[in-house]
Amino acid sequence: MIDGADLAARMAGLEPIGLGPDGTTRLAWTSEDDATGAWFADQAQALGLRVERDAAGNRWALPPGDGPWWAVGSHLDSVRAGGRFDGALGVAAAFAVAARSAKPVAVISFADEEGARFNTPTFGSRALTGVLDVADVLGRADADGTTLAEAMRGAGVDPDGLADAPAALERLRGFVELHIDQSTDVDAAGAPFGVVGALAARRRLALELRGRADHAGTTSMEERRDAMAVAARVIVAALDLGLAAGLRITPGRLLVAPNALTTIPEHVRLWLDARGADAAALDGFVAALTEQAQALGAEGRVEVTLRVESRSDGTAFDRTLRERLSAGGAPEVLCFAGHDAGLVAARRPAAMVLVRNPTGISHAAAETVALEDAAAGATAILELLAAVA
Amino acid sequence: MIDGADLAARMAGLEPIGLGPDGTTRLAWTSEDDATGAWFADQAQALGLRVERDAAGNRWALPPGDGPWWAVGSHLDSVRAGGRFDGALGVAAAFAVAARSAKPVAVISFADEEGARFNTPTFGSRALTGVLDVADVLGRADADGTTLAEAMRGAGVDPDGLADAPAALERLRGFVELHIDQSTDVDAAGAPFGVVGALAARRRLALELRGRADHAGTTSMEERRDAMAVAARVIVAALDLGLAAGLRITPGRLLVAPNALTTIPEHVRLWLDARGADAAALDGFVAALTEQAQALGAEGRVEVTLRVESRSDGTAFDRTLRERLSAGGAPEVLCFAGHDAGLVAARRPAAMVLVRNPTGISHAAAETVALEDAAAGATAILELLAAVA
Repeated sequence: MIDGADLAARMAGLEPIGLGPDGTTRLAWTSEDDATGAWFADQAQALGLRVERDAAGNRWALPPGDGPWWAVGSHLDSVRAGGRFDGALGVAAAFAVAARSAKPVAVISFADEEGARFNTPTFGSRALTGVLDVADVLGRADADGTTLAEAMRGAGVDPDGLADAPAALERLRGFVELHIDQSTDVDAAGAPFGVVGALAARRRLALELRGRADHAGTTSMEERRDAMAVAARVIVAALDLGLAAGLRITPGRLLVAPNALTTIPEHVRLWLDARGADAAALDGFVAALTEQAQALGAEGRVEVTLRVESRSDGTAFDRTLRERLSAGGAPEVLCFAGHDAGLVAARRPAAMVLVRNPTGISHAAAETVALEDAAAGATAILELLAAVA
Repeated sequence: MIDGADLAARMAGLEPIGLGPDGTTRLAWTSEDDATGAWFADQAQALGLRVERDAAGNRWALPPGDGPWWAVGSHLDSVRAGGRFDGALGVAAAFAVAARSAKPVAVISFADEEGARFNTPTFGSRALTGVLDVADVLGRADADGTTLAEAMRGAGVDPDGLADAPAALERLRGFVELHIDQSTDVDAAGAPFGVVGALAARRRLALELRGRADHAGTTSMEERRDAMAVAARVIVAALDLGLAAGLRITPGRLLVAPNALTTIPEHVRLWLDARGADAAALDGFVAALTEQAQALGAEGRVEVTLRVESRSDGTAFDRTLRERLSAGGAPEVLCFAGHDAGLVAARRPAAMVLVRNPTGISHAAAETVALEDAAAGATAILELLAAVA
């Protein structure tokens, strides 16, 4: 049994790293990232684990011998002005599990999970599982003009080796991640932690509406081709269709041209993010919205195009692992954020535990968990590994 | 009777001025503005009229003696890449009327009617009628950083005298303007020209919606405070309320923050332009929209504020003048754009004729009228002045 004091002791070494007045900032490939690596090495050494860094910069704490091993872990990077628990809690819990496990267990800290610097979320787990577009990412520049390749090299990881990252997968038998809940779902279930049944499916839709820029006064309503008027009706249609299908719909980004007080909008670009448990429900939503958007465009004399710009069909985690983790009564939850465990699940048995977050606040200094709740989740992982490892 | 050939001959001298590949550009206080002034002086001289420029830079062609006189006119400035007829047609027609009138008639070319350079529409007629906020406008800068005061001085008009512009009103007994229709309303009535019954009333509404920026995935629909979702429903409500009340509603400008693909919009600023024949109908619209916007905000947990940023209750033109202009069967139309005659109408008997524009295109090189139609409108003005001057 793992307790909160154990986790508190392990977290204490991390907390000063990147701590500023607005929260914790530990971007990938920086000196803060190096400092979390030093903490990782200390934790590993205390347990007699050896540290290796794979070709993607993921840090592994490995038991003696050749493996493959079951591993527990998460990530040590953060967003800008993030919280103390997102990622870090899962790596601290992993060392607590490894410390108490009768079976050999590895610990992983995935590189650049947040992707906050180069827009490369789940970088390390994508590289490990062979789904990272290496050529696409290495040339990306951060806000200062530094490329990812330069940043990796500066952090001691050879970018030319990145494509070889999947070789490290051979060490891995299975993977379990503990993470702070980024919603109030676990709290709403009244449990200290929940077991993730699946990561949600997602579609990002890019819409383009082309009307005509006319005078806001002199053009009759019957003649005008108002791209914004149609865009508003399309957003309402998307929200209503999503509500009926139990989906989460976000009209996050919208660009209007010419965006002038007395000119009818000619051109609107609109992005909708749609998420749900079920890829089929999302496909049904996209089909229905496409039809409604075309009808609304025809009615408003506006040309509407709708394109699925990116898609993920979601990830169901290993049923056996989920059932063992839930044996103590932990609720099963659907997770609407992306996680390293979701990538690993495509190649190895994987599971994920979310720790209760009473406010649901995430990616901000105010995110919070009770360490006793996290210890309960870590204990469930310990018990799972006793059975499967 | 005025014919199209007369108007064509007068327009011929204007057409090269400011003509570029995209249309005609004659901004106020520029060398193109000077060139139209030279044309104005030539036209006046040929009719034995003397030219005076008032303190706002409006050009007057005056009969001998002291007045006051009836005047006909419009403006010679244009928007960027505008058409050949907007304004210029009315000044050419005014000289044609003055040439044939048995009574003394003045011609006016109002300064900076379009306001395209300093966002000062109907500048000259506002100054003349004493409703221009002189202190507010003189410091405004154009895209190159030149202030209006500097531009006026460069064009030979002393900005320090601007507040004295209303003195010139003493010369004026009444005013009639001929202008290209900026809609298809006259064409739809099957007439060569229409008589403006009134300029439409207008309200500009500024709305602000404040929600909360949360994660597009992890925040449930019940918890989110999506400012854009509510803004879309408010736009649809405004369009539907406007349609029911016979108003013209334009959601012309919209700013979303943070405007990111996977973040729920926290803050939306939205401007709605509403126009109609009737100030009371517009006030009813604003009241109903305010109520619906508050309800939609409450439902979406978004704070909504709605402010009337500018308002005009419209202008009914002189009934006697309208009836005489319509004597030949010309239809009465409601005009949804602002015009110099609308400003003058507050101080002197005034009327306005709109010439058929088959496409309704305005503020673009493609705007067009048949000069025979314009000549019919000018002839009606000539006959009106024979009766009232």
